Amino acid sequence: MKKLILALAILATSTAQALEPIPNIVPVPADNPMSAAKIELGKQLYFDPRLSLDGTVSCNSCHNVMAGGADDRPTSVGINGQRGGRNAPTVWNAALLSVQFWDGRAATLEDQAKGPPLNPIEMGMPSEQAVEERLSSIPGYKTQFDAIFGQLSYDNMAKAIAAYERTLVTVNSPFDRYVNGDNMAMSDQAVKGMARFEKIGCTNCHSGINFAGPEMTMGEGFYQKFPLFESKYTRQYNLDEDKGRYEVTKDSADTNTWRVPSLRNIAVTAPYFHNGVVKTLNETVQVMAVTQLDVTLSESEIEEIVAFLNTLTGEFPVQTMPRLPGIAGESLVGSIK
Amino acid sequence: MKKLILALAILATSTAQALEPIPNIVPVPADNPMSAAKIELGKQLYFDPRLSLDGTVSCNSCHNVMAGGADDRPTSVGINGQRGGRNAPTVWNAALLSVQFWDGRAATLEDQAKGPPLNPIEMGMPSEQAVEERLSSIPGYKTQFDAIFGQLSYDNMAKAIAAYERTLVTVNSPFDRYVNGDNMAMSDQAVKGMARFEKIGCTNCHSGINFAGPEMTMGEGFYQKFPLFESKYTRQYNLDEDKGRYEVTKDSADTNTWRVPSLRNIAVTAPYFHNGVVKTLNETVQVMAVTQLDVTLSESEIEEIVAFLNTLTGEFPVQTMPRLPGIAGESLVGSIK
Repeated sequence: MKKLILALAILATSTAQALEPIPNIVPVPADNPMSAAKIELGKQLYFDPRLSLDGTVSCNSCHNVMAGGADDRPTSVGINGQRGGRNAPTVWNAALLSVQFWDGRAATLEDQAKGPPLNPIEMGMPSEQAVEERLSSIPGYKTQFDAIFGQLSYDNMAKAIAAYERTLVTVNSPFDRYVNGDNMAMSDQAVKGMARFEKIGCTNCHSGINFAGPEMTMGEGFYQKFPLFESKYTRQYNLDEDKGRYEVTKDSADTNTWRVPSLRNIAVTAPYFHNGVVKTLNETVQVMAVTQLDVTLSESEIEEIVAFLNTLTGEFPVQTMPRLPGIAGESLVGSIK
Repeated sequence: MKKLILALAILATSTAQALEPIPNIVPVPADNPMSAAKIELGKQLYFDPRLSLDGTVSCNSCHNVMAGGADDRPTSVGINGQRGGRNAPTVWNAALLSVQFWDGRAATLEDQAKGPPLNPIEMGMPSEQAVEERLSSIPGYKTQFDAIFGQLSYDNMAKAIAAYERTLVTVNSPFDRYVNGDNMAMSDQAVKGMARFEKIGCTNCHSGINFAGPEMTMGEGFYQKFPLFESKYTRQYNLDEDKGRYEVTKDSADTNTWRVPSLRNIAVTAPYFHNGVVKTLNETVQVMAVTQLDVTLSESEIEEIVAFLNTLTGEFPVQTMPRLPGIAGESLVGSIK
């Protein structure tokens, strides 16, 4: 038995609790009620590259809702070709997470949305005020903010984006249909994979409606150490280089701990892990079995579990493209350095 | 009278010929008939950043159909933050142009679509074959190409993109409604501006359904010298630095000649000119009057013409977002250097 770096303090959960279908409703904070107008504004902002300094990067650049909600890259690319340090988490079903970012440093979607625009290697805007000034100069935005919120502000921008993101939920995956009674929705191989997924202990962490842990109060995270067991993978993939939640709390107990990521739509969010270093889901399953459960899987066992994970890809709702408001006869990005 | 650099050889056209409403149908080449499946595939390809080497740039990055069909920048930004040399032309109504690119070097939308993926400072793919290999590795693309074209190829990629682009037509602008009989569709100021636009000679070049010149055979361009008259603007805005069509033909007669750009949706495609150097439509109108017609307009005359140009913004059709096909459990861009 390899050295256990951090003792697991997780009770085994029963199948009924561990694996649940996705809900049709998402939690909505009392201070940011949903409305059609707000969602539409949020969608415009989400797709608007003018939220970045040079007009090249929108929320959608790294969290592509036309695909798996991420960007297919190990780590994201911001303005001027700069690379971030972590793999972009998918925006799909982010509304069902109790905290945001890999390290849980944002309690809400609203808080999360305020990060990237001001991050110098992501969208690079110099200040909240600069974002507000830019948006205020676009009459179509000004009018919508005034009507919906009473005023245009950075916080209200984040609220609108969060409202749009709460519509990005993928229901009715083969797994959901299966647990809702459609026995034909999953193949025998996938059903076997689901049983193995539970038996070897994946559900110790990847449980609940989002396969991201037990239900938590919004704003409270479910964190786990990764890598937990020492293995060749730690060095091969630099798994412990990024200290994870420790970078937020500076508490040594949080070293290399991470918000347990959702497994929904995992088949469409390659590459994997916080540093995006593993390119295929098959290898990811093996790395997880070895590093988190001290189990080495056979090829056929991996295939079974991957067949199960493939059933977690939900239905992506058809969306209309937003129209981005402009300034008649005037360029915005072209006139701002 | 300033020196006339190149004699105009254009007959004055009557109002009836010069200003025409936009058609509901676009020319379609015989070897690329439209179909719903092809348009849908083309839309996916148009929005897919995996057509660029590092997965950061799609057609839509520089020709944003959610906005005015361009990118709000003087010149576009390709992979690794590289800047192109010319302002991105709008994709809206490009189907109505007889040649593509500022210098008319592509005879069709199909030919145009084959340029940017292989341009090292735009999408940076090393070869047609590399694009074909990448697309072939995505099962959802392979299936669609096989069904629609019989095979996946770079040329067929361009055909699909062109088919999608032929749906990007903005009908029913206030100007179109006005010339179709709705006298209330344009303000008095805009009507005055239209009259002035014709009177001072703008329609010498900006005539026809697309305000881009007389009807031409597809593949044949309508080119004009710019700047035509010497003025302070030539140096101020480096208007003659880029030799335009000369770079294609190496014929000195083509020095500083350009495909006459469409004025449809001109109010939503700032900044202006081939180098994107002028930030507002008001100043653009003055620069054009001075450099092309040797006329200096008063502020109120400029305002009238801009009011008219604002009526050329058409209705942007509501579009659904495409779903970009992926590779189950595998990253594509993350695994290609």
